[in-house]
Amino acid sequence: MTKNILLTIEYDGSGFHGWQRQSGARTVQGELERALSHTLGKSIQVDGTSRTDAGVHALGQRASFQTDINIPADKLPMILNNSLSNGRIFDERIPGEIKIIAAEEMDEDFHARFSAIGKKYAYRIRTGARQDIFKRNYFYQLIKTLDIEKMKEAGEHITGTHDFKSFETSGGTERETTVRTVKSLEIYEDAESREITMEIIGDGFLYNMVRIIVGTLVEVGTGKIKPEEIKGIIESCNRSNAGHTAPPTGLYLIEVYYHEDDFKNQGAIIWM
Amino acid sequence: MTKNILLTIEYDGSGFHGWQRQSGARTVQGELERALSHTLGKSIQVDGTSRTDAGVHALGQRASFQTDINIPADKLPMILNNSLSNGRIFDERIPGEIKIIAAEEMDEDFHARFSAIGKKYAYRIRTGARQDIFKRNYFYQLIKTLDIEKMKEAGEHITGTHDFKSFETSGGTERETTVRTVKSLEIYEDAESREITMEIIGDGFLYNMVRIIVGTLVEVGTGKIKPEEIKGIIESCNRSNAGHTAPPTGLYLIEVYYHEDDFKNQGAIIWM
Repeated sequence: MTKNILLTIEYDGSGFHGWQRQSGARTVQGELERALSHTLGKSIQVDGTSRTDAGVHALGQRASFQTDINIPADKLPMILNNSLSNGRIFDERIPGEIKIIAAEEMDEDFHARFSAIGKKYAYRIRTGARQDIFKRNYFYQLIKTLDIEKMKEAGEHITGTHDFKSFETSGGTERETTVRTVKSLEIYEDAESREITMEIIGDGFLYNMVRIIVGTLVEVGTGKIKPEEIKGIIESCNRSNAGHTAPPTGLYLIEVYYHEDDFKNQGAIIWM
Repeated sequence: MTKNILLTIEYDGSGFHGWQRQSGARTVQGELERALSHTLGKSIQVDGTSRTDAGVHALGQRASFQTDINIPADKLPMILNNSLSNGRIFDERIPGEIKIIAAEEMDEDFHARFSAIGKKYAYRIRTGARQDIFKRNYFYQLIKTLDIEKMKEAGEHITGTHDFKSFETSGGTERETTVRTVKSLEIYEDAESREITMEIIGDGFLYNMVRIIVGTLVEVGTGKIKPEEIKGIIESCNRSNAGHTAPPTGLYLIEVYYHEDDFKNQGAIIWM
């Protein structure tokens, strides 16, 4: 009998050319399919929820696949993590760049992407500090400082249901409409480290939408854009009125939602 | 007139096959020489202080080279950092993996390696935590917890002048003697994050000596080796009596000393 398995996946995107399978390039989907096919003894293709770009990270990416192999879903994470770790560079004590957090059996009509009703992303920024080479893959590092209160004010104008055409890079996947709902946008600052985290929840995001929102909020934080200008930027439906596209390194796919009940914001993530 | 220039270099060793130039492999020395030769318009070879292994990091590596190009030393870091950043992967806002911190002109008989009279290394360990994939290149991650007090006690037996043959991997550079002086060995624990840092200063280190000391102290921390056994392990001059070789990822070359005055321990580094 065919099973429909849903995986929850964490990865460090630094060393990958993004999620999507590409011949000749190392991608997360490619590595995962290699490990799955090796483990299950036949070619497996997965459907991922989000085609994250090169350099983007995930704590809770999802991917589903069908298989007739009779293996209990809860055994899959350990077996897959072993297989994924075969690419380890230095030492067997070092965990791999991809980690399967969970595997569960779903109904036959479930699909990791099409069944999703929302997503949560986080974006991490370091400000007012010299560039730390050890953090270059995990943050957007700015030497200047940002006015957080103004950024929060601007964030309130972004929250809600809008046509986000101004916040889209062309070239993404096809979409019927550019209207999206941002259910919440919160900005936290760690007083000691001066690290800023933005957490955003929405029913869906256009191509580069989170990174353009961040770039625009950074320009609000530096004073280049005023918080009250956000409304006009949205209404213009013109990409050139929004701010720059923030780099991929600070972006983390945190969670994918499949039920309305999941949409409660769990508050700030603890970044250890 | 020929100038003798000394560079201070910071690097993230994760993406390199170590310091030493190798044909067909990306190394720190190779990248640095490429940038120097490009910048100065003629082939330049540098002498590095420490041949760090693949995965080992540096905050204060040193390297010297001779040149007759008439360029003020203090202009070199900016020019070199620009050249080194040409290999950037994603975005021009991301700083490179190698950063030149300083450049200074030295006397003609100065040599980055032969003039060095000591070095300071740090080693970072995470304990009692799940493996964090985003930290896998920067720490030795252990799920178990360690008895820090016992490790400190063992560290006292390592401090001093000893034959450290038990703490050497064969295959390193030639050396006249295996006697070395560990001037200080300190272990700190961050109560909140439970991250442990060992800082060690010595007049020189045998091949893998710091990593074998760390592996041995970890085995003291887990109870496998008793602190009072360290003396016998040293006296045996037998590698198999010491603990395992800790992975390269936790190791950082912090500082190189050229004058007796430099040997004051500056206390714990602030890891931000």
